[in-house]
Amino acid sequence: MTWTDVERQLGWLSQEELDTARGRLPILYVEAVPVRVDAAGAVTAVGLLLRASDDGAIQRELVSGRVLYHEKVRDALMRHLEKDLGPMALPRIPASPVPFTVAEYFPTPGATAFHDPRQHAVALAFIVPVAGDCAPQQDALDLAWLSPEEAAHARIQAEMFGGHGVLLRQALAHLGHPI
Amino acid sequence: MTWTDVERQLGWLSQEELDTARGRLPILYVEAVPVRVDAAGAVTAVGLLLRASDDGAIQRELVSGRVLYHEKVRDALMRHLEKDLGPMALPRIPASPVPFTVAEYFPTPGATAFHDPRQHAVALAFIVPVAGDCAPQQDALDLAWLSPEEAAHARIQAEMFGGHGVLLRQALAHLGHPI
Amino acid sequence: MTWTDVERQLGWLSQEELDTARGRLPILYVEAVPVRVDAAGAVTAVGLLLRASDDGAIQRELVSGRVLYHEKVRDALMRHLEKDLGPMALPRIPASPVPFTVAEYFPTPGATAFHDPRQHAVALAFIVPVAGDCAPQQDALDLAWLSPEEAAHARIQAEMFGGHGVLLRQALAHLGHPI
Amino acid sequence: MTWTDVERQLGWLSQEELDTARGRLPILYVEAVPVRVDAAGAVTAVGLLLRASDDGAIQRELVSGRVLYHEKVRDALMRHLEKDLGPMALPRIPASPVPFTVAEYFPTPGATAFHDPRQHAVALAFIVPVAGDCAPQQDALDLAWLSPEEAAHARIQAEMFGGHGVLLRQALAHLGHPI
Repeated sequence: MTWTDVERQLGWLSQEELDTARGRLPILYVEAVPVRVDAAGAVTAVGLLLRASDDGAIQRELVSGRVLYHEKVRDALMRHLEKDLGPMALPRIPASPVPFTVAEYFPTPGATAFHDPRQHAVALAFIVPVAGDCAPQQDALDLAWLSPEEAAHARIQAEMFGGHGVLLRQALAHLGHPI
Repeated sequence: MTWTDVERQLGWLSQEELDTARGRLPILYVEAVPVRVDAAGAVTAVGLLLRASDDGAIQRELVSGRVLYHEKVRDALMRHLEKDLGPMALPRIPASPVPFTVAEYFPTPGATAFHDPRQHAVALAFIVPVAGDCAPQQDALDLAWLSPEEAAHARIQAEMFGGHGVLLRQALAHLGHPI
Repeated sequence: MTWTDVERQLGWLSQEELDTARGRLPILYVEAVPVRVDAAGAVTAVGLLLRASDDGAIQRELVSGRVLYHEKVRDALMRHLEKDLGPMALPRIPASPVPFTVAEYFPTPGATAFHDPRQHAVALAFIVPVAGDCAPQQDALDLAWLSPEEAAHARIQAEMFGGHGVLLRQALAHLGHPI
Repeated sequence: MTWTDVERQLGWLSQEELDTARGRLPILYVEAVPVRVDAAGAVTAVGLLLRASDDGAIQRELVSGRVLYHEKVRDALMRHLEKDLGPMALPRIPASPVPFTVAEYFPTPGATAFHDPRQHAVALAFIVPVAGDCAPQQDALDLAWLSPEEAAHARIQAEMFGGHGVLLRQALAHLGHPI
């Protein structure tokens, strides 16, 4: 049985159906800010994915992806972290379902701080400590670990798009870091 | 221009399209626990809607509804509070987008504490102080204000369905009330 | 019965006792970021107190003060808001006891982002919408309302001390604002 | 140099000084609800300490203790978890300083849901996953791991005092569990 068969059985969407839904409904996303923590839980580093954009520029990204039909939020988080950081990352998914923020991505630029030209997406955003070895997967070129101070720097923000820079700073603020 | 025309222009869904989407995608909801507060912000009462169920039984409900395409979460909250409590309720929508909990309603009973036979819905839940006069609208028979102690009572839980009783208790817990 | 008698009866501290305690125990504080909100709860302005520092410079501050013995956190918030913003400010103290952050002020500079040369203070910080007329009291020269964008500006941060600038930006982040 | 010398140098309190302070100032506490989590972060068990009370009865408790002068909240959490669960418990202290609730213990019964006859204590409460081996220390007789369903049971609540039962249920609610 192929992956597509599985999706069909579970009632998941074809690309065409997804494109239609994207113009009609807010699409639910999860986003994760991967962090390294010390023994007392203090954040020592923040992980950012490096990707090549369609026009060849390099940009930094957080872990992000759609929640599927009949998938729990924590399972979606797990799946996207594994997809982007590899199977040995050992993410510690938060025990509580409460996100540190909710980011509303609108297709119209400027409606909120978050922008996604493809769709109206609403993302539950979580800070996720990862304890294992991360190996960027798929189309990510690298995963860079930055100190919280570096991550808060305007230079890093300038390499992030669609509001991921804002989301990163909101995560640092929630962690108690100066931003 | 009729309401349906507006919906069509905005790319909202026909009933048929909505039914299809409900079997394919998690649908984003907002839920509100209406409360009365005293001058120091302490909750003095919790508002529960009284509705007749399809089989004629009386059940208690929280304010709940779908987030539309291109609608902000706070605007969806405002719209559903006005729809259920009337135009003079003066709800004080929270300034922060962070919900007190995220409730995951699955069509399969028992998958989580929340159940919705129609769909997989993910609800951002907020506690909303209301300062004005509430007049139950549409199909609600009444709005009953209970003390936090009454609201936590097992008798009230037994009159709530699909997990609304759980959500109510989670709200009381978040407010610091014994449950 | 004078105020001092009341304090003595309630077991509150003399200045000398307070000075001693400040070198021996973390002192519990509350801090409030006063905001104006629109009908849908979105923040339209942030209130900052203007004070003259001991050396005559002008600095901006948030509302801040100690929690007294046998005083509830919400009553301490109410008292300090009334003290700084006047009796007609109509603050809407949050219904939940959960602060948006906990700021740890150490007498040693650099131990955390927060510094208080007098003491080790731990502050529960809340965002508080105020609906009435604010009139700065006591030693405050003025209360200035800034848009969230202005409040996030580096120029404003430079006029805030001891970490209040960090706390302000953490509040804006919690509100979902870009910072 | 003895422990007492260290305390004196650091400005910590003698028993007599502490007794005095307890009648004059709110005392800052941290409390922890130890939990076991599965690979997706879902809570599978809650840890409760078993202690003999002064009159010989058995009671269940959460991890709890004072924050010392010049001690960070996360270091206080670490110290008390190690003190109660042993050095091999491997607690995962939360990365964010935001507690899931703030419990206000008053010496006057009934002022809040929390009661401590010795003092006015304000506790920052955190849920802490522990990954290692727990061995109850000091005066604790045992550490019992209960399923979330068992932990929410009225029978367990009846064995907890001073509001620890309320705090436990608030933790379960924050975790998204029915209570």
